[in-house]
Formats: sequence, structure tokens, C-alpha cells
Amino acid sequence: MTEPNAVIGVAVLGLGNVGSEVVRIIRENAADLESRIGAPLVLRGIAVRRIDGDRGVPEGLLTTDADSLVARPDVDLVVEVIGGIEVPRKLILAALNSGKSVVTANKALLAEYTGELAEAAEKENADLYFEAAVAGAIPVIRPLTQSLAGDRVNKVAGIVNGTTNFILSAMDETGADYSDTLAEAGRLGYAEADPTADVEGFDAAAKAAILASIAFHTRVTAGDVYREGISKITSGDLEAAKSLGCTVKLLSICERVVAEDGTERVSARVYPSLVPLDHPLASVNGAFNAVVVEAENAGRLMFYGQGAGGAPTASAVMGDVVMAARNKVNGGRGPRESSYAALAIAPIGEIPTRYYVNMQVADRAGVLSAVAAEFAEHGVSISTVRQEGEGSGARLIVVTHRATDAALSETVAALGKLDFVTAVTSVLRLEGSSE
Amino acid sequence: MTEPNAVIGVAVLGLGNVGSEVVRIIRENAADLESRIGAPLVLRGIAVRRIDGDRGVPEGLLTTDADSLVARPDVDLVVEVIGGIEVPRKLILAALNSGKSVVTANKALLAEYTGELAEAAEKENADLYFEAAVAGAIPVIRPLTQSLAGDRVNKVAGIVNGTTNFILSAMDETGADYSDTLAEAGRLGYAEADPTADVEGFDAAAKAAILASIAFHTRVTAGDVYREGISKITSGDLEAAKSLGCTVKLLSICERVVAEDGTERVSARVYPSLVPLDHPLASVNGAFNAVVVEAENAGRLMFYGQGAGGAPTASAVMGDVVMAARNKVNGGRGPRESSYAALAIAPIGEIPTRYYVNMQVADRAGVLSAVAAEFAEHGVSISTVRQEGEGSGARLIVVTHRATDAALSETVAALGKLDFVTAVTSVLRLEGSSE
Repeated sequence: MTEPNAVIGVAVLGLGNVGSEVVRIIRENAADLESRIGAPLVLRGIAVRRIDGDRGVPEGLLTTDADSLVARPDVDLVVEVIGGIEVPRKLILAALNSGKSVVTANKALLAEYTGELAEAAEKENADLYFEAAVAGAIPVIRPLTQSLAGDRVNKVAGIVNGTTNFILSAMDETGADYSDTLAEAGRLGYAEADPTADVEGFDAAAKAAILASIAFHTRVTAGDVYREGISKITSGDLEAAKSLGCTVKLLSICERVVAEDGTERVSARVYPSLVPLDHPLASVNGAFNAVVVEAENAGRLMFYGQGAGGAPTASAVMGDVVMAARNKVNGGRGPRESSYAALAIAPIGEIPTRYYVNMQVADRAGVLSAVAAEFAEHGVSISTVRQEGEGSGARLIVVTHRATDAALSETVAALGKLDFVTAVTSVLRLEGSSE
Repeated sequence: MTEPNAVIGVAVLGLGNVGSEVVRIIRENAADLESRIGAPLVLRGIAVRRIDGDRGVPEGLLTTDADSLVARPDVDLVVEVIGGIEVPRKLILAALNSGKSVVTANKALLAEYTGELAEAAEKENADLYFEAAVAGAIPVIRPLTQSLAGDRVNKVAGIVNGTTNFILSAMDETGADYSDTLAEAGRLGYAEADPTADVEGFDAAAKAAILASIAFHTRVTAGDVYREGISKITSGDLEAAKSLGCTVKLLSICERVVAEDGTERVSARVYPSLVPLDHPLASVNGAFNAVVVEAENAGRLMFYGQGAGGAPTASAVMGDVVMAARNKVNGGRGPRESSYAALAIAPIGEIPTRYYVNMQVADRAGVLSAVAAEFAEHGVSISTVRQEGEGSGARLIVVTHRATDAALSETVAALGKLDFVTAVTSVLRLEGSSE
């Protein structure tokens, strides 16, 4: 047994939005942090790409040599907030391999390499914490891995990407179209210069992989997550959603799928979806995040708050830092990876959901019944049909009961061949209805 | 260093709503629990008051001798779900004093004796977990003690009593008065035969003490919590609240109060309060619970779910059981009591809040200005006044800006002496407005 640490040496990798806030909190709240940990946190160094200009921290702390910083014998705990994958992966592995605790906010990395990182942590009995990787300041990882450790989670559904939620909320509110709203989000700092990772759902998919892994005790990587982004959502979709008592949200959904023979699989998927206005996720607007968890005994829980931003994300990082540092002082270790269930991934084609189909049709008698017949033909049961507009603006808006992706795709293909269906303009799922 | 446990022996004290669900989960989910813990959970015995009839568990597990059960050398972990104070206190102390881990859902006990229990746990390096004591299945204790361990919590405000929330929601919805609604709640199983602990705010005050203790790293007991119940709320209050764009909720509020000279104190208080309809707590209805946490870096977080009931509460208990059992297997210990800040309690008289005052007045000219003058006289600034009804039904509904309890009490006393004020029928606080 090693001696308990008298001080905890910390290395911070990265001094961007989150890194600067982490450093600020460590310096400003030193007395409180020491009382909570039982030993002082001492900042050993901050790895940056370039040392230039005033970064608001003593220049002596800055280094461009992250490898050497991580390797310092007086560093006990490494905070990784660089982003990217290969560089942080190597640094984190180096830290874990020498028994140092690691706190990271890097969802893209975790969604690919949690297994590898967790094995390194296991070998050296080191801590690997990542509360900040999903939903910023909102405690989600800890509730799932600890508070619900004695329960059986059946579903996790969340709004975990602030950029897309800002865009969809704004489109819903203003009636503006996607590209104008994206441009506005960029001007306001809610969307990056290259918004692909957000608007195409890659960020939400990485978070879905992390959530599915911990909720179902199964390794799920980003590649296992079915993914659709929001770039094809039109103002017409928002309008149609409103007429159906819904709004549109980009959801990250992780679900336990139980076959008739009892076999369990995991479905992890990200797509824009209609959500009924009375569902708790419907009123999560702007850059806010929320995660709804459904567990066998706990029932439905919801966690809500700021999902991004320097200070909120740093709050989550610092919670992990205090826990990892306490373990260094008191002995013991935080929760390990739990992947014993090793469930298979259910392909998206087999997941039944409700659908909304919006199509432009010829304005003549019999169209509705012919379209309805086509749905019936493919075994897709219709819940409601709404006929709107007239002449060349005539539209049919169909909401189905639960159907598989496969059955729906075949229906849509068949509808496209009907001469009185000018175009199937949108197909979106509908989630969160009781039906 | 002791050997890691090959099995974890569990004693359950109490076989009521929560206890039976705990026992059910331990028996039904044995394989999953073993995988998550790293060793099987073995139920050593269940302490009950009387062994009679079919309790749905093997009779051999039942015992009326709780002391001997706790003392058994093959019991590593004690789950206390008896309720009451003196009996569980002695049993929990006996368990902790012999180094056993304890999981309890007993808010009344914790609100009085956390200090004593935590010291016993500390001495023997034992775990004391109590996630289920506040807000049932909703993770609140763990987020506050762990996720926010690196942040600075400024306020916790919650709806943490299902009975009173059911009654207030029903009064708001139906317009019925308090006593009829309480009777209905009793018939539906939402209120106990003696509802005092719930409707007079004792239960909510115990939870406020626990929340304040962990949020502010200070020992706060039930006696430190200012408390008003809901039994004086009338249908007229709900109606007036509605006309002001509010509803009425029983809130448990814990707040960091900072004086001008920087001195910090803690305010913990429970009272029915007007809450604006656009506040997230306003839409928490029926038997649901929710807790809003405001922290310096995290911003505003909200946790929502089922705050009571056998299975939801057992979910929280079992999360603690798995964590405590893991610590027995892996070494290490969960979070300890943190009371280093030792802040003083701020008396309710010094806490400024907004107020709603409803009074019956004579229907004649000049009343409004005379009443307004009386508020001004005592330094209480008025936000809005609404005059309703006429003749003997004439009323004034005043909403103030922030004022101290002391200033408001003096104002109300003075109003009572005015000959054209027939009666001051209600005085309630208003919380959660941005003003």
C-alpha cells in the first residue's frame, strides 16, 4: 500500500474554454478544494500548443511539452481538455499506465477508446472519470453508474447537443429555415465555423455511445450508433410538427431491446424526431441539455441544465478532480468500467418507432385513400392523416403507429412511384408519445 | 489491510414498502448485482417487528431480533428502512461501530444525528450512504456531494414531499379546499392516517436539513430549519396565485446568505410559496419531486422524478448498496461527511423574500392608498396591487418586492389595526421570480 498523498499534483492538458475555467477554479477555490479533498491541489503545469501572449496564468506553468508534463513524478492527476483523438489518447494512456488518475471531457475519444483506456486504468488501479463528456454540468454519468447501479435501466433519451437544440428551438420560434438559422447560430457563437460534428449528429452520437455503454454495461462505440443530422429539417417540418402538437428535437436514444425469446440487445441512435409538446424534453430549449432515464424501479427521471460552455463543463471536470484526488488521499478507487453484459447491437432496421411522413400530392379525389392503401400494403398502420393546402400546394401529412425502419422505407419507396405523389418531402420519427 | 470479501452479507432492517422492494431486487437481480459488485450479495436476514403470515420471503430469513442480526459476523452491510429515530439510531451505530457499511433512507434520523453517525463511520472507516433519504429515486445526494464537489453551491430549492405536492396540485386543478383535498389524498393512499409530518412540513424540513448540510459543508439539523406547513392554504390562495400567474408549492429551500462584510451563513427553510408558472418547479405536479440546484459554475440544474414509493425508493437504496458493497470488495470508501465550512444559521427574520398579502377590506375610496402607505411606512416596497370584488367581498391582493420577514410581520400587524382592513387572510412568500 502506497503512502497517502500529502499534496495532489495536477496537470491540465489544454487551455481553451474549459481548460481556462478549470485552472481558474483550482486557483480561486484552493482553500475549499483542499478542505474537501484533505490535501491541497497543486497545479504542476498546463500543456498548450503555443506559449504566446497573456493567457491569464503564470507563464511558468505553461509548457508545450505535454508528454513530459504527464510524465512528471509530482503529477498525480491529469485533466485532459484538449479535444481531438490521437494526441489525448496517447497522453491519457501514458498517465494511466503510470498509475495517475485521469479526468477527461473528451467524448469523441471515449466513444472510440473507452475500452482501451478502461483496461489501462484497471491494470494500474487508476481512476478514469468523465462526467463532463456528456451534457456538460449536468450529472448524468455518476447517476447512471452509481445511483442506478442497483436498478435496471431500460431507456436513456436526451438532448445532449446544444448547437442543434439552439437551431431547432430558433426555427420553431421564428419560422426561419435551416440555413439562415445555422448562420445566425454561428454569429451568436452557438455554432462552430465547421458545424459538421454538431449538425450531422456526430457529437450526439459519441455521447449516445458513452451513455449506452454505461447504462447497459456493454461496450458501445460511435460506430454502433445509427446517426442522422438536422441539416435536412425544413421550416415546413417545424410547422407540420406544430400542427400535430409536437416540436422537433435531435434526440440521442439508448434503449434495451428485448426480443420475444428474451434475448436482449442495445439500440443506440441519434436522429431529429417529432416530440409531443407535453413530453418533458419538448420544453428543453436553446443551448440547454436534458437527459431522461427510464429504469425498472426508479421509473422516469430527468436531469436538466447547461450542457456546454466553459464554466459549466469545468464544474463537472472539477467534481471528478475532487473525487479522484480524494481517492489518492484516502486510498480506494472510483467506479470501474462495467461491460459484463456485452449485449449485441440491434440494427436500426429492426427498431420500431412511429413516423411522420410529409408528401406533396396531386389535389384530386381519392389520393388520401390510395396513399392509405399503400401504407396498409406494407403493414404500416396509420394513426392520423392530415390534408393541407390545395392545387399544387396540396400535402398529406401522415403519422403512423409503430413500424420498423425497414417497413417504412419500403412504404416510402412505393409512395414515390405513385403518379399522384409529387414528392415525399420529409420522413421523421416521432418519439415520446404514449401510444 | 483486510482481505477483500468473497461474498457480501446483507441485513435488511424493516420489511415495509421499501424493505420488501429492496429484498425483491436483491433476490430477483442477483446475477446482475453480482456482476456489478464483483461478489454475490447474500441476504443474511430481515428484521421485522412480528413474524406473522406470508411476507413473501423465506420465513427462515425473518427475525425479530434486529440487534443480533446486525451483530452477526457474516453481515457486512446493513440496510435500514425501519423508520423512527431511536431504534434505527442504535442499530446503525452498532453496525458502524463494528465497521459495517450502512445504507439508510431515514431522513428524520439523519436530520438529527448525521453528525453522530458520520463520526462513528469515520472512526471505523465505514461507509454511510443515504441517497434514498431525499427525493426517493432522484439522485440528489450523490450529485451534490460528488458531481458538484468542485463547485460552489449557492441555492437548493426543491419540492421534496409528495403528499403536500399532491394536495396543492389537486387544489390548483379542482378549486377544492384544503380539508376536502386532504381527505381525498388519504383515500387515494397519498396521505397517511396522521398526515402531520407531511402537511406541517416536518418531512420537508428534515430533507432541507440534509440538503443544506451537504450543499454547504455544514452540519444543519431539523431544528435549524424554519418551517411552515400547508394546512392554512385556502382555495382562495390558489385562485389569487393563478390571477398573479403563479401556483402554490411547498418548497424546501437551502441558501447561502452572504452579508455585506462577506460573512457567509446558511438559510434553510420550508414554507408554501407562490411560484411563477414559468419557473421549472411550477410544473412539478402530483406526487412527483424535483430539486433545483444553483451553483456558481454549473449554473442552474434540475433533477426530476418519483420522490416516494416502494420501488423508486428501493432503487436509490440499491444504488447505495452496490456502491458500499463494491467498496467492501475493492477496498476504499465512499464520500465522508464534509462539514468543514461550519457556517452559522441565518434566522428567518433576516431573509428577504417577496410576499403575497391577501386582505379583506372595506369597499370605499382611499383604501388602496392607505394600505400602500402602511407598507411604505415599514419600508416594504410594493410590486403590484390588485383590487377584487366589491361590498363585503372586497379584497386587496398585494405582492411586494423583497422584504425581510421582520419588516413584513410589522406591516401585517399594522394593517390589522386599520379599521378598513377587515382581516389579513393570507400572507405567503413568493419565490422563484427573477425580480
